[in-house]
Amino acid sequence: MEARVEPGDGALLLPDPEDPRLTRRVEGLDHEGRRVETHVVHERPLTIFLNDQEIVTVMTIGDHPEYLALGFLLNQNMLRPDDEITGIDHDEELEVVVVRTARKTDYQQKLERRIRTSGCAQGTVFGDLMERFHEIRLDPTARLHTSWLYGLLKRINTTPSLYLKAGAIHGCALCERDRVLVYMEDVGRHNAVDKIAGYMFRHGLRPEDKIFYTTGRLTSEMVIKTVQMRIPILVSRSGFTAWGVELAREADLTLIGRARGRRFLALAGEHRLVYDAPLSAVEEREDPRTVRKASLPEGEAE
Amino acid sequence: MEARVEPGDGALLLPDPEDPRLTRRVEGLDHEGRRVETHVVHERPLTIFLNDQEIVTVMTIGDHPEYLALGFLLNQNMLRPDDEITGIDHDEELEVVVVRTARKTDYQQKLERRIRTSGCAQGTVFGDLMERFHEIRLDPTARLHTSWLYGLLKRINTTPSLYLKAGAIHGCALCERDRVLVYMEDVGRHNAVDKIAGYMFRHGLRPEDKIFYTTGRLTSEMVIKTVQMRIPILVSRSGFTAWGVELAREADLTLIGRARGRRFLALAGEHRLVYDAPLSAVEEREDPRTVRKASLPEGEAE
Repeated sequence: MEARVEPGDGALLLPDPEDPRLTRRVEGLDHEGRRVETHVVHERPLTIFLNDQEIVTVMTIGDHPEYLALGFLLNQNMLRPDDEITGIDHDEELEVVVVRTARKTDYQQKLERRIRTSGCAQGTVFGDLMERFHEIRLDPTARLHTSWLYGLLKRINTTPSLYLKAGAIHGCALCERDRVLVYMEDVGRHNAVDKIAGYMFRHGLRPEDKIFYTTGRLTSEMVIKTVQMRIPILVSRSGFTAWGVELAREADLTLIGRARGRRFLALAGEHRLVYDAPLSAVEEREDPRTVRKASLPEGEAE
Repeated sequence: MEARVEPGDGALLLPDPEDPRLTRRVEGLDHEGRRVETHVVHERPLTIFLNDQEIVTVMTIGDHPEYLALGFLLNQNMLRPDDEITGIDHDEELEVVVVRTARKTDYQQKLERRIRTSGCAQGTVFGDLMERFHEIRLDPTARLHTSWLYGLLKRINTTPSLYLKAGAIHGCALCERDRVLVYMEDVGRHNAVDKIAGYMFRHGLRPEDKIFYTTGRLTSEMVIKTVQMRIPILVSRSGFTAWGVELAREADLTLIGRARGRRFLALAGEHRLVYDAPLSAVEEREDPRTVRKASLPEGEAE
């Protein structure tokens, strides 16, 4: 799938806003009563199977179903990092993706427990995610230079994306120093994270020297996922929840939120920050032409 | 609970950003390396029981657990509009709320089916929600005057809220003409909707002449919930997904997105719009002092 994209600057995979399967033109009325056309993103179901067991149906834009399935299963602890994948079959018409492993899997019991104890209010399950959280040690020697951070924010904000084209979508980026390696978007913010997790697993990218960027809020769940992926630095343009901050401090994750223009706020793992960017060289505010397409900036996706 | 708030202008219930249970002060480093303090919102689990059956655990800021429980159960079709509520018990320490009905309920089978057929990717279950969607007729005679719309947007944006105080939170408002009746916030955007549904049920508010506002995106799920609540007009400052637009057109829901400052876009049910506001009287952009507190505007919550 990634053959469709020709990423520059050393990037491995970037959004493909011209993919006709991902957006649709629709007509409507604007604030002056004029008929106008606009783009909106698609949202379609994808049912993920692990071997012969149906696991979940997620709503997604539909690109990279294989990475999404792998990443979802990994982040749910249903796939193990050392699992041998014997096949991934995607049927676009049936909207189904099947991940096959050499190991025999059975999550019937786990799925039943999930409903009884946790439910699914925020898209995944705390009980499962917390199981391993406390055992994980993040690399304390990783660093985030503010010069990298400002470069990354600018790069992410100006890369052609579905967000800039149609809005109403979340974005995540896996970065190394000042390079954006993988940039994924999805209507579900957890899908974007899961697709990156799937990509890292499939291509054997190591997490210890990476920086994770998300447009979404820094909630407990987002912190748990990042820690579980062993990435020591998490950056967002959005804000924090109290529990997100608490968990990040517990895990010594560097947690940076409200990163826009020149400003940001680090509420955990501040020791990894290296303030090397002269602030006078950084624009105080983001360029509205790229970050907010006219009146199109989107609620959740900002 | 609503006794804590003294809403003006005919509002019934507004956010209470001074409630000390809802936010916490935390310390961190800003972009210049200075130690700063900020507010972050709380996020805590709440487990909802229907009679003796555990239904779900949601992550919430924790205000109005009774309305949240009622609204969640209603929007999941587990409570019927004509159900007699015999009691609602909230135990703050156990983080549990129990809704009791005169009717005997049993959703064991439904809960099991949920896992098998749909999963929980976006927080609720399509299968269940769609069941009744096609039977619902929304009031075609309802109207949305643009003068009301601009008044509502201004009122919502300037009302003291957790969003203005701490960010990273979603807001929803139930409105009638140019009045904001009930304004709820939550870390989970569906919780904010559910709390309003619970309030409407508890206080017998009729839906046909109401306008629903959300900060969240206009996805399929949001459209389905609004239709299920029988509210004919849905407004958001965020954008659309293709399926959200499609379902709104099917149900003849008036769907207005990207509503900020003077601009908005109606992609369904345009016949309910009455363009009566002279645009010259409406400010082109929102006041950054109230809408975006310094650099604090939050991703998902915008």
